[in-house]
Amino acid sequence: MKVMRAVNTKQCAPIIYALLQLIIFYAGLNAVKGVWPLPHALTSSVEQYPLNPQTFAFDYGKHSATQQGCSLLDAAFRRYFLLIFPDYTAENGQLEVAANNSFSLYISTDHNDCENYPNDDSSERYNLSVSAGQASLNAATVWGILRGLETFSQLVYQDDLGSYFVNETFIEDFPRFQFRGVLLDTSRHYLPVHAILKTLDAMSYSKFNVFHWHIVDDPSFPYQSRSFPELSKKGAFHPATHIYTQSDVRRVISYARMRGIRVLPEFDSPGHTGSWGKGQSHLLTPCYKGGAPSGTFGPVNPALQSTYQFMASFFKEVTSVFPDSYIHLGGDEVDFSCWRSNPHVRAFMQKMGFGGDFPKLEAFYIENIVNITSANNKTSIVWQDVFDYHERRSALSVVEVWKHGCYLCKVRQVTKAGLRVILASPWYLDLPGPTHNWARYYTVWPLAFPGSEKQKRLVIGGEVCMWGEYVDATNLFPKLWPRASAAAERLWSDEKQTSSVEKAFPRLEDFRCKLLRRGIQAGPLNVGHCKHEYQSV
Amino acid sequence: MKVMRAVNTKQCAPIIYALLQLIIFYAGLNAVKGVWPLPHALTSSVEQYPLNPQTFAFDYGKHSATQQGCSLLDAAFRRYFLLIFPDYTAENGQLEVAANNSFSLYISTDHNDCENYPNDDSSERYNLSVSAGQASLNAATVWGILRGLETFSQLVYQDDLGSYFVNETFIEDFPRFQFRGVLLDTSRHYLPVHAILKTLDAMSYSKFNVFHWHIVDDPSFPYQSRSFPELSKKGAFHPATHIYTQSDVRRVISYARMRGIRVLPEFDSPGHTGSWGKGQSHLLTPCYKGGAPSGTFGPVNPALQSTYQFMASFFKEVTSVFPDSYIHLGGDEVDFSCWRSNPHVRAFMQKMGFGGDFPKLEAFYIENIVNITSANNKTSIVWQDVFDYHERRSALSVVEVWKHGCYLCKVRQVTKAGLRVILASPWYLDLPGPTHNWARYYTVWPLAFPGSEKQKRLVIGGEVCMWGEYVDATNLFPKLWPRASAAAERLWSDEKQTSSVEKAFPRLEDFRCKLLRRGIQAGPLNVGHCKHEYQSV
Repeated sequence: MKVMRAVNTKQCAPIIYALLQLIIFYAGLNAVKGVWPLPHALTSSVEQYPLNPQTFAFDYGKHSATQQGCSLLDAAFRRYFLLIFPDYTAENGQLEVAANNSFSLYISTDHNDCENYPNDDSSERYNLSVSAGQASLNAATVWGILRGLETFSQLVYQDDLGSYFVNETFIEDFPRFQFRGVLLDTSRHYLPVHAILKTLDAMSYSKFNVFHWHIVDDPSFPYQSRSFPELSKKGAFHPATHIYTQSDVRRVISYARMRGIRVLPEFDSPGHTGSWGKGQSHLLTPCYKGGAPSGTFGPVNPALQSTYQFMASFFKEVTSVFPDSYIHLGGDEVDFSCWRSNPHVRAFMQKMGFGGDFPKLEAFYIENIVNITSANNKTSIVWQDVFDYHERRSALSVVEVWKHGCYLCKVRQVTKAGLRVILASPWYLDLPGPTHNWARYYTVWPLAFPGSEKQKRLVIGGEVCMWGEYVDATNLFPKLWPRASAAAERLWSDEKQTSSVEKAFPRLEDFRCKLLRRGIQAGPLNVGHCKHEYQSV
Repeated sequence: MKVMRAVNTKQCAPIIYALLQLIIFYAGLNAVKGVWPLPHALTSSVEQYPLNPQTFAFDYGKHSATQQGCSLLDAAFRRYFLLIFPDYTAENGQLEVAANNSFSLYISTDHNDCENYPNDDSSERYNLSVSAGQASLNAATVWGILRGLETFSQLVYQDDLGSYFVNETFIEDFPRFQFRGVLLDTSRHYLPVHAILKTLDAMSYSKFNVFHWHIVDDPSFPYQSRSFPELSKKGAFHPATHIYTQSDVRRVISYARMRGIRVLPEFDSPGHTGSWGKGQSHLLTPCYKGGAPSGTFGPVNPALQSTYQFMASFFKEVTSVFPDSYIHLGGDEVDFSCWRSNPHVRAFMQKMGFGGDFPKLEAFYIENIVNITSANNKTSIVWQDVFDYHERRSALSVVEVWKHGCYLCKVRQVTKAGLRVILASPWYLDLPGPTHNWARYYTVWPLAFPGSEKQKRLVIGGEVCMWGEYVDATNLFPKLWPRASAAAERLWSDEKQTSSVEKAFPRLEDFRCKLLRRGIQAGPLNVGHCKHEYQSV
């Protein structure tokens, strides 16, 4: 039985999907169990092609805008070769270029964007066709090629003797949402650089494309600033072992870029800044008790001109270190009690005409920071708190919805105000709860609110958050994977094709086994085992 | 300031403890943060002795019943040398015996029980005194020496330059409960042998002394039986990679013995036996539907003589493979619907005079199995279900209380019936919930039920259970540690000295850092960091 690609338009997706189900049923156990996240249009047949690592090659199509020497793709070929052939061990440790290829994967891009950084308007669309002796992977950009290579690597499977196969397959694929993020918190616990890099690997396996680096917060300040080295020297857990040097940061950004992942830094203020005060005096608000300073400090002091001078210098550095066009400014959970206690802050408010309205003071502060980052050509993201207290909402760009309760009500409200939304509320993976229940992260419908098409388009994506109170390198991976992958499919795939938990379960189980085989310590979904488990963990 | 050991009777423990608190306060940050689980009587001073790996030695006291050549202790010395001096790297990979020792730890035992297995009446009591140039560790048995070595290893600390120190210390210590167990479930997920061995290491750091091996269950039968090899061949997840061979089992038992840990095997029946039926036909009850066998199977068939013949052979093997004098027979959660559907089972019940009373049938079955194991000189443990339906409770020995609700009511009831109790209910560590909340496992009071002294003595201990539905080698360690250690202190230490969660927290945080340093991937308790984290994980 063989089903050829007839049409690939979006309208045919349900029919194609139904056929695919039928085909997979007939193809039996040895056939590919599926790709995670599910591509938008996929047809495959039982026609099986053997792959041999000795005679398999990646190659650039004749008309491709990128050609050999594109280090991003050349490195991706080396990486995916080992992911496609996990049992392969090169005799001299080097991958050999086969003289006579029996199977070639030709890639072709429209643009030569090899040296770029992925950005918020990067296309990740790709077409992949696998037929006898060759496969073609076409995309507008190198980012699309990276997504297609991931898909191809998941199509390859082994029989019981260890031989590799791929089935005849045709795929048209693109992300549903442009912003598909994972937040790591490196302040509550320091995460070693290798744990971040491994997270980036795992993210690319699930087609995540934004690493939201919540790099500093109250407990510690691990970012080693060029301009203000005292911040990490005094504010990190340890000034030498628990910091991210400029070189570490460059390495993370470069590693992420090679995988088509943007690095979105967050420097949260004016709250969540306890650790900033250790290395930068007169930045935080002195709290008062009984008419005198109590010795404790609150949020950043919004009443001092020096605060804005410091922030201008600091964000000038940060915006040059992190190439992404977005920056996250935080703005959540500001406690007013310390501001309220401070007579200088209160006098400043009188002077500014804010009276006793602390949200106005906070809005004033944030707008200053937004202006600083705008001047450095960055689009700022803020937590929903800022939207809630801001009167001049038009000054804002992107709002991240994180609070519980009716989060879609908030999404509706923010989009109605014409602002873009990133949804995080349903994906707080660190929260206590039935840790094994991946389905709660799968059955999320980000657009299920009453609103116009324009409003829906303002929902630019979503994000999995792994806050660090009870998470460090010892438990990060089994807590994050494969539960984050459930959210990844929601953010990448067509909702109608992926609405059933029951249908998703065996595919996710299979994907979790792939993660294990790739060295990602992904936790179990339920009773059972993986064929290759414990080989690389 | 120097406090010498004055008296060591139990009555003085509170005074000693208060003094100790004071001393630790004065000793400052560099002093030892404590031993986990807390010894019953401990005094220490600020008198600090440097330790040097080059000139430190373990030695046998002149009057010790065990002497050099006791492989159990010789191996423990090698192990603890590396735990005491974690930065030490021998030049040729061998530990050198120093010619001129500047510090010797002399051990002395009353008995030469080097070749024995630990058992339910093994003494673990030890005395440890650390003074200038030497330490003495005395115990009745080698098991007491093992516990004392663990304590000594926790007393040693490093200053900021990496030099090792130990303070003048006097300890008298013994376990509160004789049975302090950790249950691992190797049926719902297979755990590789190295994960079991590492668990045994971690258990010894918390002074656990029973490894309850829930080795088989419905999903898989990984135990490779000598007499019935088909059981694992057909019942394991994989007949070659997901089994425990006889050699694996011997290795686990031997590794456990070297650490003073008993291995308690559980072969649960008549329920939880789905995987048994694959390799042993006519063992499980055929379920009926509409007057005919439905093709599905229920619990072990209690109506066939062949069942008891098989079980007699099987348990004869098992009781010879596992040297411990206890065996766990399970007996929990038997579903009667299949027995009820089967006309042969019903006919057997009529013949036996049970009428329609299925608990009677189950009691009949279990009593047969208990008799089989008694004939092989084993004491049997059963889950509380067996106690609940059994009329002739005097046939039982040890009951494990596991159900939720008022578990102390059940403990009271079982001890009133004169039976021994192991408490597991409050320590189901696999259950979903606030995974970071270690305090719930700490604030457990196993004897807080109204009852006689005799009843209290029948509570022989407790057990941490890590069922395997959502647990495998990827997440076992951060789920188990250090939460299990909270239970370990409850089971080892004096309750009055360890009733405060606030006082325990910094000690447990410190102990968790020790676990990390020893290569145990113990999860974080809260925001923070360890000095040496990520060195060995």
